[in-house]
Amino acid sequence: MINKYSEIALLLDFYGNLLTEKQRQILSYHFEEDMSLGEISELLNISRQAVHDVVRRSEKILRHYEDKLGLVSRFILQKQKLEKVKEKLLVQNKQELIEVINLIDELIEQ
Amino acid sequence: MINKYSEIALLLDFYGNLLTEKQRQILSYHFEEDMSLGEISELLNISRQAVHDVVRRSEKILRHYEDKLGLVSRFILQKQKLEKVKEKLLVQNKQELIEVINLIDELIEQ
Repeated sequence: MINKYSEIALLLDFYGNLLTEKQRQILSYHFEEDMSLGEISELLNISRQAVHDVVRRSEKILRHYEDKLGLVSRFILQKQKLEKVKEKLLVQNKQELIEVINLIDELIEQ
Repeated sequence: MINKYSEIALLLDFYGNLLTEKQRQILSYHFEEDMSLGEISELLNISRQAVHDVVRRSEKILRHYEDKLGLVSRFILQKQKLEKVKEKLLVQNKQELIEVINLIDELIEQ
C-alpha cells in the first residue's frame, strides 16, 4: 500500500496534464511539496476554502481518470515486477535466470 | 515506427475506456479486426458516412489524450528497453549484467 500523498503524486504524474494549470499547481503544492492549505492560500492570495475546493475537485478528476484507465495501478504492478527481476538477477542461478526472462516477457506483454 | 493500425490499436488499449461503447466498438472493428467501413456499416445497419464520422472523431479523441499524456510513446520506449534487457541477459557476462541492472533501474524510475 502507498499513502495518500504518494498516491496523489503518482496520479498527478500520469494524469496531471488533463487538469488546468491552476489545479495542477495547487495539487502539486499540497501533495508534492507538502504545503498546507493555509500556506497555499497565502501564497496565491485566495481563500483557504477556495484552495480546499480546488484540491477536492482536482482529486476527483484524477481518480475519475484512474477508474477509467487504471494506469497508475498498472504502473505499480509493473514496478513491483521489475523490483523482483532485479532481486533475482543479483542472486541468480540458471533456474532463476529462466524465471527472470519469463517475468520480462510478462512485462513486455502487459 | 509502427503502422497506423497498430498505433490506433495501442491508443485504443490505453485510452479506449474514455470513449463511448459505440465509438470503441467501431474503432475495434476497423483497426483491430480489420473490417472495412462498408462492412461495419452493414453489420451495424448505419450509413457508411456515419461509420466514417465516428472513426474520425474517435481517432481525434484518442490522439488528444495521447498528446496530453504520452502514455503510448512511454510504453513503446519501455518495451524497447525491456527487449534490450532480455537480449543482454541471453548473452550475458559480468559487464553486461551491470548494464542490465542499470537499464532496469531506469525502467523503475520512469
